Formats: sequence, structure tokens, C-alpha cells
Amino acid sequence: MSLTGKKTKASPFPGDDFLLENDFAAGLYHQFAAGLPIIDYHNHLPPEEIAVDKQFGNITQVWLQGDHYKWRAMRANGVEEYYITGAASDWEKFEKWAETVPYTLRNPLFHWTQMELRRYFGVNALLKKENATAIYEQCNEMLQSPEFSVRNLLRKMKVEVVCTTDSPADDLRWHRQLAEEGFEIKMLPAFRPDKAIYIEKEGFPAYMDELGAAAGIRITNFQSLLGALQKRIDFFHENGCRLSDHGLEQACAEDFTEREVDNILQKRLSGRQLEQEQALRYMSALMFHLGKMYHARGWVQQFHLGALRNVNTRMLKRLGPDAGFDSIGDFTHAGALGRMLDRLDRENSLAKTILYNLNPRDNEVFATMAGNFNDGSIPGKMQYGSAWWFLDQLDGMEKQINVLSNMGLLSRFVGMLTDSRSFLSFPRHEYFRRLLCNILGRDVQRGYLPADMPWLGKVVQDICYYNARQYFNF
Amino acid sequence: MSLTGKKTKASPFPGDDFLLENDFAAGLYHQFAAGLPIIDYHNHLPPEEIAVDKQFGNITQVWLQGDHYKWRAMRANGVEEYYITGAASDWEKFEKWAETVPYTLRNPLFHWTQMELRRYFGVNALLKKENATAIYEQCNEMLQSPEFSVRNLLRKMKVEVVCTTDSPADDLRWHRQLAEEGFEIKMLPAFRPDKAIYIEKEGFPAYMDELGAAAGIRITNFQSLLGALQKRIDFFHENGCRLSDHGLEQACAEDFTEREVDNILQKRLSGRQLEQEQALRYMSALMFHLGKMYHARGWVQQFHLGALRNVNTRMLKRLGPDAGFDSIGDFTHAGALGRMLDRLDRENSLAKTILYNLNPRDNEVFATMAGNFNDGSIPGKMQYGSAWWFLDQLDGMEKQINVLSNMGLLSRFVGMLTDSRSFLSFPRHEYFRRLLCNILGRDVQRGYLPADMPWLGKVVQDICYYNARQYFNF
Amino acid sequence: MSLTGKKTKASPFPGDDFLLENDFAAGLYHQFAAGLPIIDYHNHLPPEEIAVDKQFGNITQVWLQGDHYKWRAMRANGVEEYYITGAASDWEKFEKWAETVPYTLRNPLFHWTQMELRRYFGVNALLKKENATAIYEQCNEMLQSPEFSVRNLLRKMKVEVVCTTDSPADDLRWHRQLAEEGFEIKMLPAFRPDKAIYIEKEGFPAYMDELGAAAGIRITNFQSLLGALQKRIDFFHENGCRLSDHGLEQACAEDFTEREVDNILQKRLSGRQLEQEQALRYMSALMFHLGKMYHARGWVQQFHLGALRNVNTRMLKRLGPDAGFDSIGDFTHAGALGRMLDRLDRENSLAKTILYNLNPRDNEVFATMAGNFNDGSIPGKMQYGSAWWFLDQLDGMEKQINVLSNMGLLSRFVGMLTDSRSFLSFPRHEYFRRLLCNILGRDVQRGYLPADMPWLGKVVQDICYYNARQYFNF
Repeated sequence: MSLTGKKTKASPFPGDDFLLENDFAAGLYHQFAAGLPIIDYHNHLPPEEIAVDKQFGNITQVWLQGDHYKWRAMRANGVEEYYITGAASDWEKFEKWAETVPYTLRNPLFHWTQMELRRYFGVNALLKKENATAIYEQCNEMLQSPEFSVRNLLRKMKVEVVCTTDSPADDLRWHRQLAEEGFEIKMLPAFRPDKAIYIEKEGFPAYMDELGAAAGIRITNFQSLLGALQKRIDFFHENGCRLSDHGLEQACAEDFTEREVDNILQKRLSGRQLEQEQALRYMSALMFHLGKMYHARGWVQQFHLGALRNVNTRMLKRLGPDAGFDSIGDFTHAGALGRMLDRLDRENSLAKTILYNLNPRDNEVFATMAGNFNDGSIPGKMQYGSAWWFLDQLDGMEKQINVLSNMGLLSRFVGMLTDSRSFLSFPRHEYFRRLLCNILGRDVQRGYLPADMPWLGKVVQDICYYNARQYFNF
Repeated sequence: MSLTGKKTKASPFPGDDFLLENDFAAGLYHQFAAGLPIIDYHNHLPPEEIAVDKQFGNITQVWLQGDHYKWRAMRANGVEEYYITGAASDWEKFEKWAETVPYTLRNPLFHWTQMELRRYFGVNALLKKENATAIYEQCNEMLQSPEFSVRNLLRKMKVEVVCTTDSPADDLRWHRQLAEEGFEIKMLPAFRPDKAIYIEKEGFPAYMDELGAAAGIRITNFQSLLGALQKRIDFFHENGCRLSDHGLEQACAEDFTEREVDNILQKRLSGRQLEQEQALRYMSALMFHLGKMYHARGWVQQFHLGALRNVNTRMLKRLGPDAGFDSIGDFTHAGALGRMLDRLDRENSLAKTILYNLNPRDNEVFATMAGNFNDGSIPGKMQYGSAWWFLDQLDGMEKQINVLSNMGLLSRFVGMLTDSRSFLSFPRHEYFRRLLCNILGRDVQRGYLPADMPWLGKVVQDICYYNARQYFNF
Repeated sequence: MSLTGKKTKASPFPGDDFLLENDFAAGLYHQFAAGLPIIDYHNHLPPEEIAVDKQFGNITQVWLQGDHYKWRAMRANGVEEYYITGAASDWEKFEKWAETVPYTLRNPLFHWTQMELRRYFGVNALLKKENATAIYEQCNEMLQSPEFSVRNLLRKMKVEVVCTTDSPADDLRWHRQLAEEGFEIKMLPAFRPDKAIYIEKEGFPAYMDELGAAAGIRITNFQSLLGALQKRIDFFHENGCRLSDHGLEQACAEDFTEREVDNILQKRLSGRQLEQEQALRYMSALMFHLGKMYHARGWVQQFHLGALRNVNTRMLKRLGPDAGFDSIGDFTHAGALGRMLDRLDRENSLAKTILYNLNPRDNEVFATMAGNFNDGSIPGKMQYGSAWWFLDQLDGMEKQINVLSNMGLLSRFVGMLTDSRSFLSFPRHEYFRRLLCNILGRDVQRGYLPADMPWLGKVVQDICYYNARQYFNF
């Protein structure tokens, strides 16, 4: 084994030792990480498509349709909306994407594109305009085969668990169907009550009806809302749910009394608008009570904080949300986040928690905040979560890993997730694993870590698989 | 071609392969970037000095006088103000600077100093106290020769376009004179209406008179102000202007009505002070209307956000602004910046835009914000601009390039500008180009990019020259 | 001397060339830095223990007891509080720490642990559960020997000066005793008036009594408070104090009149609570007057800004402050910090100043803010201080050094301090010195700096020792 320099072989691209700059890193990856199964504890896969074992008609449908990362890149490359979300044919859309790919160099899409084409379809060429037709035809042909059904795509990547993201009002029919059927990959729901939290949003009163109907409880005040949510949490738990998730601009930790919150909720249920301060008070109360319920169930609670969504109102009207017009916000976090967690901790009701920040300037705030609430009950109770969305790329992941290392315990990290809507995005776990091994290998090369392969190999395996298995208790 | 390691030859300093860590990087630079002309689309050169083809008396005058970067370093090094902006002789000032240079190691001034002395004057030694006399004499002698006239300094660097920074009230006489004369380097004006924006500043009412006089319109209300600005924009456009620039602490996106704004402006024109909220409302209205005018003309609008200026009031009184007492601010940007751009986009009136941030903690906010408004009309419509002022150094530029890469399309970047008051600052383009090639070469070495020299060479050429040529339509 | 590559020998760990990636770096360290004495100008060592030349009973007492960095890591590793700050035996606590150490890889504790065991006790093995007994016994035996008295621990590290952190009410008896005794290591007090600043804290009125008693002045209004503080500053100065320190969330620079402040103080002295705005006004006034006193004495003033303390109230009640439940805050700094410094500068009363930030997102704000107030009186009057607390690790220190380099003069930096409560933490100076040499050596390797060993060696020596000696005038 040599530690003396960097690998020089740069082709084929990306090669077997992609991202692995020295032999120690390559050893860590190939011997310890590459073969592990995947626990994808947070994604946005559509449960129905797994349940019916969907077969996609062509690569545009499985790969471009719904992927706002690619849409954004195409817009930046001067592609008209017609070819992105418009009426153009699937082939035209694919061709425009193929033309764009070379222009994405140094963007994560460039690597993802190659890895996804290669791992799923065996395509070795770099996608570009010139080979778009051939690759389109090859992929489409393969997609006709049963090997490329949705379930087989998951099996191909050794996926063991996928946690979808579900509304509390969801009937989880597809999750139940799969469980009954005995599908060997666990598809578990995750509880995402955002629609119950965002009291100011237009559809809130209607959502209360929907939620109430699902719970069999008429929601007329804060107590009945909590009752309904508790019933849905129980229902989710019975169906294998072990974690919740919340997408918020900022943590909510205003003071409140039950009575105030009751008045606020009733005002809103009657269709009236709230003052911002009222909405915040309601949200703070709800987060507190939800937190207690999660804790009682032994769940993990996740917080994704800091996105500034739907910045482009013209396109929001045209395409709706999640179409590639969201931004990294510059909100203030530390105070409210600390108070929100402390409020639960004071009552010995703080669940296992994962904190994700979208603005990398907040990495250190989030990592140190997590550290304030480790209570010695289990290793890594408070997690500083994996680099998310815009940060899900080499720089972003490396920064998250470095901050976690410096301000916490990397060794206890529950690792990567796809956070994706795409069945082809599982190579991101490979990407993460390679990067992680490379970081450790580089540290060994620099003399920052002893060259102890078995020990570091175990650390890698923990982060890539075993920590998550232990932490979530699926 | 070898990718196996780093260059080891470290002298003479800076050498031919300065900043180029491997052969691929060196190949990219020497074969693709080095020979390209320069489009310097944003600087602060004095138009008159180009028009009269000024010849500087000595190197202190061309190099130290007016360079607050150097002043700041000298103050930090314990040099008395007398030798910086005071009554000391030009030689004394040069000598103090020479003494300071070795203490600037790792500051961009250290590299710039060497590059500027070498590229313009052929000086290979590192400037320091011991060789100050010899270098002073050598440079001064060369400055006497016609080869060192201002125009020849530009020609020496293959400058093709310079865009100066001009007040809307400027008569552009020097620009017109040069255009009539047929000078082969395009010197174009850029429209910088800061004095019309900062309504609270002491000189605002007087500036309204000056602007009105230039436009032949008496400015008595908001409509006549807009009329005057439109006339100046037309006039600038006729004289080759294709971009505007704005220096603001934060974007301005308050709600307003024309009537309110009219009242605010009239109050201020009558000499009264405004409340901060009124000023913001006015500024928001003005930015909106200016934005529409830029869009109608097909211009590029630039925003330089986040400087905290004139922090040292004692020195402000003594030396005035732009004397080296400005700071990086920590303002909040995302919300207002998004609203400002969205307001124009909603009316299909958002011009091509370049966003520059001064605090690097905001890199990701600015890069993703730009991405929200790409509309597919042209490649790279919304630009995340080059590292600016304090960030114009290797770390700052590399971070900007990395964030742009990860969150946008580096390949569509319009690249570097000097933003400088000095005729000797054009080697900063070389500095940028070397760094850019090195980043790509390093990626190739690490296996992040395929070792495809022609392709990457074209990317380099686009970023260093062709993208700007296409984007600005000079 | 070779510049061609990185060192490959990775064992024993950490080796002689730990952190030194090439021969130039190693040369700088071994020839220039390694042998220098230590000026530890900011720490939290207990003066009494030095005065009585305390001998510790076992390694738990000298190494774990009081080290909240280690506590935090243990909690994150799932260790129960009983084994951290609870009733467990010293051996049990040590064993739990030993079990945790391998899990701290990539955290500074991992390196510090090995360096401290090795430099003080000659332990070469990596501490872990398996060797905990042997290492515990070996260290404890050594601690019995007079060689391991507190003073000898300092001598072993060539410590020349230690500046403790002391309340203005302190009688400095131990400092005086040591001075009278003629102990060859200077133990000097540093003036930390936080208790007089935080007017809202519960113990404030009582502290005013304590301070008044120490000064022989009854504190009944703002004038008598200032009188008392001036007397204590005089007293501290007579006892060798040359610097002050302040721990604040944010700088205080509100407008105030003496009369307002007088009313606020009297209100608080009468036991009443203040509004936040009143507290800020008082704090602003006090910082201003303290700043003038420091300047008059030629002291250095330090500001540690941005910690969010005691986030976990359950544990605060149980263990008190400084127990590992503090966080990095995300406060806004630039405006108030600028005004606070400017207010003093305007009266020509701005003392030499060191600014430390806890959130690395503020690095550039702090570095450029310092640069606004260099007045040429001495080199490096305004210092951007060393990476602090959570940032005291390789990444944090490297970022601080890079920002200081890019936005100021690294060559004038007064360098490292331990900021520690532990007698075993002095290898952090070695850690810093190695990192610094490595940064310069890497720059040479990359061709960013000329390979001029004597010059760069002098720069290293200045930063590691001579700049501090000159700056503080101890």
C-alpha cells in the first residue's frame, strides 16, 4: 500500500477510484464501504410507484421529469422553458439536457449524471449533444426490461430501507400494502406535518378538515388538533414510522399559553388571517407538543431549516412549488433553535434529533447547537445532519463532515440520505462514501490520523450503515 | 504531459508557471488563456487620463497615489500617515511602501506588487527596503518613455474594452472624444446612479440640480427625476454604455406608491431630513424604475452589496471617503434581494444582472438567488459576479468560483474585472486566469474532471473572454 | 531539501514531523519555531495553584476535571453524566474518557490527547480502553514526582509568561506572592470586568459591593463606579497587568448621556430590573470609559464576541456555567463593533485591541474591522485574534490565518494563546506553530511564496514569540 502520492489515472471517467486520491482511501472504500447496503432514511420517493413496481416509459420520465436541479441548470444554460417543463417531446427534453451536461462541469449534476448513467445503464461515455440519440435509445431499451422496474432499481443499489415523506393525513395504503406483501426492502413512512404547522398558508383550514377526517376527530381547537396528530402518530408508528421531518425557515420558540394558541387556531379555522406574531406563537406551541409526542414514541425528529422558497412568483404561478426557484436564505437561527430544543429538554422530552441547515455559513451554529443537548443516553443522540439540497456536493459534504468532526463526533454520524424524488439518485450514497473514505485517506497521508486500516474501516462502516441502523431502530 | 505531481521549481518568483500546480493547469493557461485580450467591464479608471494619454511623473504617482489597498497595509505595518497620504515626498512614500512589501506576504498585495513590477517594468527582484532606490529609479526612468503612457500601458496588456464608472450627470466628454478619435481600445461609460439613490446624503438636493441640468429637465418630483434619468440613460447608451452599477449596503424592495415616493422626494428636495423608512421606500421605487429602463435598453445591471463604508470617522473627516477605512458588513440580504429582482421579473422587465457580495459568508445566498431568475432567454442571464474588493485574492476568487460551480454554471461565467483605479492593475486578469486554469487542472489531477484539454481549454477561453464579449454586446 | 512531495511516514503517531507536509515546513518548524519560549497571554489558569506549586493526585484531576471540551465529547459518545461530572471514581472517569478517545478522531481532542500524553508523560500509544489502566498508572506515578508539580509543568514547556484572567475585585494575592518570591515565569493578571458589565445579571448589585470594597470606594452612581474601576486598573497595572479582556455577545455602542447611565445604574443598584435597552446603554457607556482607561495605561484590550452561553438550562441548574453547554451564536457584529471602536478612536483613546470572533462566518468582518483602526502608531496595533474555543483546531486556525493574511498582515500577528484552564494544554502552542510552518511551507511548495528560509523563518519567529513580546510590553 502506498501513501506517497495521488492517483494519476484519470480515465475512464469516473473510474473505479473516482474521488479516491490515494491507496489508503481506495482501500477504505473498496474493502469497507462499497459493499454495504443502503439505509435511505430520508427521501421523497412516491410510495405508489414502489408498490405498483412502476416501469418507466423512457429515461426522460425517470430522470428529468420532476428533477428541478436539472431544470435550474438548463435555465441557466439558456434553454427555453418549453424544453424543460413545457410541451416539448420527451426526446427534445432529453436532447436539451444532453446539450447542457458539458456546461455543468464542476456542478454536482456533472458527476451525478455520469454516475447514474453508468451505474444503472452501463453508459461510459460522457453525455453530450453528439451522443444523445444513442444514449437515449440505449437507456430506453433497457428501461423496457423488468430488470429496470422501480423495485429492481432499488435492489440494484442494495437498498435496505427507504423512508418516504408523508402527510399526517396520508392513509399509508401503499406502505401497508408493501408490508403485507412482504417486500424485502422496507418502505417506511416518515411523518411530515408541515401543512399542520404553516397556519398562515391558504390551504390550512381545509387541511385541518382533511387531517381531522383521517384521525376521526373533528378539529375545532388546539386540543382536538393535538388529539388528531397523536392518533396519526400512533397510526404511523404502527406502520413502521420512526422519524418525523419539518421544513421551516427558522425554529419556532416563542412563549405561549394554551389559551392563546387556542384562540389563534380558532381565529384561523374561521378563515381569518393572523398576524405574524400569532402564527409564530401557534407554530411554537405545535412544535413543542409534537416534540413531546415524538419523544414518547422514541422517534427521531428532523429539522430542515433555512430555505427561502418560491422566490420567483411569476414561475410559482406557472409551475407551482418545487420547480427550481428556491434559494438559500440568510435567517438567524441560534437563539430560537436553542430555545426550541431546550424547552423540550427541560421536560426530559427531547427526542433524538437531526438538524440540517441550508446555508453553509450556519454549519458551526448547527453543529455546536446539537452538542448542547447530548445527554449521554445514547451515542450521537443529537445529530448534525448531512449536507442538504444545494449543499449536497463535494464541497458542501466535505464542509459538513469537517465541521461535524471539529465540533462533534464524526464517528457517531448517521450519514447520508438521498432526499430525492428520483429512483436513479442512489449513487449519491456511493458519492458520499467515496468522499468520506477520501477525507480519511487524505488525513492518513498527511499524518493527521494513524494508518490503521481496520479501525478506520470500522469507522467508515459505522457512518455508512451501522450507525443509522442502530440510531433509527427500523 | 504529466499529471503526477506538483511543480517543484519555485524560482524566479513569480515564475512562468506561477499558480499552476500541474502540467495540465499550465497547459490550459499557456495554450488557451495567456494570449487572450482583456475585456475589463468594470473599473474606476479616470477617463480624462486615457483621453489625454497621461504620462506619470514617477511610480509613486501611478502606483501608490490613490491606492487605498496599499495605504491600509502600510498603516497596519506601523507607517505614519505622513508617509501615506501626507506631505512626505514621493520617494519617501515609495520607500515606506518598499519596506512594507515583505510584511505583506500572503496578502494579495504581495503577489500583485511583484506581478505589476515585473509585467510592466521587467523588475524581477522582490521589492524591499534594500532595493527600493534602484527599483524606484529604474521605474521612473521607464515612465518617462512614451511606451509608458497610459494608453500604452493598456495596449501592453492587450486591453480591448474598459468600462469606466460614471455619474449620470457626467457629460462623457472624454469618452466621446476618444470615440471620435477612433482609439482602438473601447473606453465605454458605465452608469452609476448612486448619488441619485442615496436620498439621505447631504449633497442629494444639489445633485438633483446637477442631474437636472445635465438632462435639461428641472427635477421637482419623482416623475421629472425619472424623466431626467431616462434621458441620461439614452445619452449614455448613445455613447456606448451597456451596463449600470449600484453600490448599496442592501437591496431595496419596500412597497411604495408613486404618490408616497413623490412626497418623500419633494420633502427631501426642500432640504428636510427623512426617516429611514422613507428613504428606503424612495430607494426601492427608484431601483425598480431604473431596472425597467435598463431592461428596455438591453443593458446589464450590476449590484455591489454589503460594504460598510467610512467606519473611521476621524479619518473620514481628514481624508474623505475611499481612503482605506471601509469594512465588510454583515447585512441580511436574501429577502430584499429576492423581492427586488422578483418585482422586475414579474413585469418581464428584469435585465441581465450581475450580483456581487462583499461578505463571503453570503456567497451561497447570492449564487442561488441569481439562479432563481434565469429564464432561459440567454445562457447565464443571471450572473454571480467575480470576487470583489477584499475578496479579490486567491482564497476569495477560488471560493467564488467554487460556489458558482456548485450552485450554478461556471462555464457561463463572464469572468474577471479589475474594479481598480490603477493603470497598473491589469495583471489581476492574469492572476485570475492562472487561478482558474489551476482549479481546472487540479480537478483533472484528482479525477474530478476528464483530462480533455480542448474542451476545458474552450471553457477557459469562454470564461476569460468570449462569455463577456457575448454577454455585454459592446 | 526537497519540495517535491508530501511526507509519507505516518508512524509513530503523532511523529516528529506531525502536521509538516513537506521539508520546507519541517525546516521552518524545527529550526525556527520549536525552541522558542511561550508567551501565553490569555488563559484561565488558577493563580493559587501556581503559587502553591500544586501537585495533582492523579491524571483525572489534572486532565479531566474542569475540561468541558472532553465532557462534551463524552456526552456525545453516550457516556452518562455520572462518569463525567458525577460521583464516579477518578479511575472510572478516566476509563470512560479512554473509551471515548478513539471516537474523537478528526476532533482536536484526538490530537491534543496524544500530544499531551506524549509531551508531558512520554506516552506513545494511542489512548483507548485497552491501555487505559496502564496509562493511568504510569501517569499517576509520574504525577507523584516533584518534576510534575504545576510550576515544573510550565517550565517543561518553556513558558515565559502566563496571563491569567481576573476579576477587578480580585486582590491578586497569588500574583503578588509570586512576584515577591521572584518566580522566573511571569504570572501576570489580566483585567476581566465582565461582572461589572453585565448589569442585568442576578449578582450584579452584590458585585458592586465587592468591587467597591476592593477599591475602597462606595459605589452609588456611575462616577463612583468609574472611580472604583480606575483604582483597580491602577492596582492591576502595578501588579504587572497589561491587558484586559471582555466576553460579550455583541459589541456595545448605543448612545448615552452620563445622566441616563447614572439613573440606570442607580435603578439597578436598588435591586430593580432593567429594560434591555437600558442595560445596553449602560454597557455602552462602561465600555467607552473602560476603553479610555486602558488606552491611558497603554494596555491591550481584548474582545471575545459571539458566544451563546448556557443554552441547556437543565444542565445549567445542575452544573452551573462553563460545563460544556455553550454554543456558537449568530449575532450581528459589524455595525456596533465599528461604532464602539470609532467612539474611542475619535477621542484618540483607542487602545491596542485584539478582536476574537466565535462564529467563523464573521472572520472577514472582524479582520477588516480591525484594519479600519490601524493608525500607523505601531505595527499591528489592531489585531485580528487567534482562533478561539470551538475554532481552536486545524481548520479554524487555518481559516483565521488565511483571513488575517488576505485582509491584514499575518507577519504582524501576535499569535497563539491557550485560553485554557488546564496545565497540560501548552502543546497547543506547538500545534499552532506546526500548522503555521506548514501553511508557509505549503505556500512555498505551490510557488505562492519564494523559498527563502531565513526570511520566512524570521516571520515564523515573530508570530510565535517576538511580536507578542513587543506588543504587550510585559
